[in-house]
Amino acid sequence: MKIIASVQGMQKITSDLHKKSKTIGFIPTMGALHKGHLKLISESKKNNDITVVSIFVNPAQFSPTEDLARYPRPLEHDKKLLEQEKVDYLFHPNVKTMYPNGFQTYVTPNNLSNILEGKSRPGHFAGVATIVLKLFNLVNPTNAYFGQKDFQQCIVIKQMVRDLNLPVKINIVPTVRDKDGLALSSRNVFLSSQERLQALSLYQSLLLGKKLILAGNKNVKKIKAEMNNYLQKYKLIRLDYIEICNIEDLSIVKVASKKAVILITAFVGKTRLIDNIII
Amino acid sequence: MKIIASVQGMQKITSDLHKKSKTIGFIPTMGALHKGHLKLISESKKNNDITVVSIFVNPAQFSPTEDLARYPRPLEHDKKLLEQEKVDYLFHPNVKTMYPNGFQTYVTPNNLSNILEGKSRPGHFAGVATIVLKLFNLVNPTNAYFGQKDFQQCIVIKQMVRDLNLPVKINIVPTVRDKDGLALSSRNVFLSSQERLQALSLYQSLLLGKKLILAGNKNVKKIKAEMNNYLQKYKLIRLDYIEICNIEDLSIVKVASKKAVILITAFVGKTRLIDNIII
Repeated sequence: MKIIASVQGMQKITSDLHKKSKTIGFIPTMGALHKGHLKLISESKKNNDITVVSIFVNPAQFSPTEDLARYPRPLEHDKKLLEQEKVDYLFHPNVKTMYPNGFQTYVTPNNLSNILEGKSRPGHFAGVATIVLKLFNLVNPTNAYFGQKDFQQCIVIKQMVRDLNLPVKINIVPTVRDKDGLALSSRNVFLSSQERLQALSLYQSLLLGKKLILAGNKNVKKIKAEMNNYLQKYKLIRLDYIEICNIEDLSIVKVASKKAVILITAFVGKTRLIDNIII
Repeated sequence: MKIIASVQGMQKITSDLHKKSKTIGFIPTMGALHKGHLKLISESKKNNDITVVSIFVNPAQFSPTEDLARYPRPLEHDKKLLEQEKVDYLFHPNVKTMYPNGFQTYVTPNNLSNILEGKSRPGHFAGVATIVLKLFNLVNPTNAYFGQKDFQQCIVIKQMVRDLNLPVKINIVPTVRDKDGLALSSRNVFLSSQERLQALSLYQSLLLGKKLILAGNKNVKKIKAEMNNYLQKYKLIRLDYIEICNIEDLSIVKVASKKAVILITAFVGKTRLIDNIII
């Protein structure tokens, strides 16, 4: 595996690969890799000549009150995992490389960025979309892979790709879960053992919501209330939101149906977790 | 010359050219071509294997009160000119192709977009930057060519290219003028013969400003006042602004020097014209 830190280095490799008509699979990450990332990588390896992973903890997607400083950065461990997975290139730039002095250009799908996670985290998706666009321009991938766990992120990126005519296919890969059902996340390391136990209730409530919809319940308010009710037992859970949305554009549905996704976000202790389930 | 109207058509051509390692020169225009555009094209033909011109009157860069509807669209004449110049490809999409239903992603360098022209025309540069980014993604040019007359536009595009790591070189080509000094513009067709005569005062005032700076005048306020004073004689001219700016980042300078550009904008009758001069 070759490690590249500079913009010019990455551009040169990309340009050479395209001249050779190689397909490039790309997985942008913030590091702290887990089995969810590894599944994205194995999808890429299966379907492309070359696989590029980036590790960059992107300051632009954290607000000043969020957990940028404490976000885990186990770089040596990450590198070992990527070597084992036979990734071809790791792009690992520093902050000054990606955001030099005078940087001022941001991009974002306006509507999608202001709902759900975007409402709870103003500016978050402008940060996400901007760094992903920059990375796409540098890596010029044929395919890019994102985890379904960050469902709104997937939809935001897909909308950006469509609107800006980017020549890349976005692949959404199902969430990887621990045996007990907890969605893998780099932030799970922050959970105490008690918090971790209670965090399972998020997925359980999603399963409950899905079961209710599949059983024919159409009343969104009632479904959300039952999910909420289920969560009441777990005292370490502070719900941010449960929403049932259209799976294409994330508009909030009035009548629950099979074309929906249920999204949930909650603080577990001090750690904010998100999860979702497609009906 | 081949004419392409679809996104897929343009992407296919671009991708094939890159596989053959051809260099692509690109000139994005809104049509109504004049000798200024032709100079951009001849620069491109000199320095690239293939030259692509786009014609697209971009609604996103006009505000509702501006002249989108009356903007000239002499398409057949434009095509003839491009044929004569031996342009390889004309990309001529329609509005729905570039802005399909649900379009919502805009990009812009925040600081540069809110000063000068951006202050007078809110949203203008977001419209410009977004369409240029889309066109760059479709045409994937090695070089792109812009006229110096739209100086702030050139700086906005250069900043976007730098910030988003776009693999294209931006070339700024000096303004082409009529024999009497009027900067060529597609909007000049709107001028009555009397307006056209008075419009010459814009360039004359720029020459006056440059002369004052080269003679050692450093007092920005005084230089602007003398330029303004000169324009007073011309009753059809309604000045919007004169500014003396740093040539790199368009910050307003406190002391006039050779690293400056003087920018002027005025209504001549109902037509808004812009011009500038580099010291």
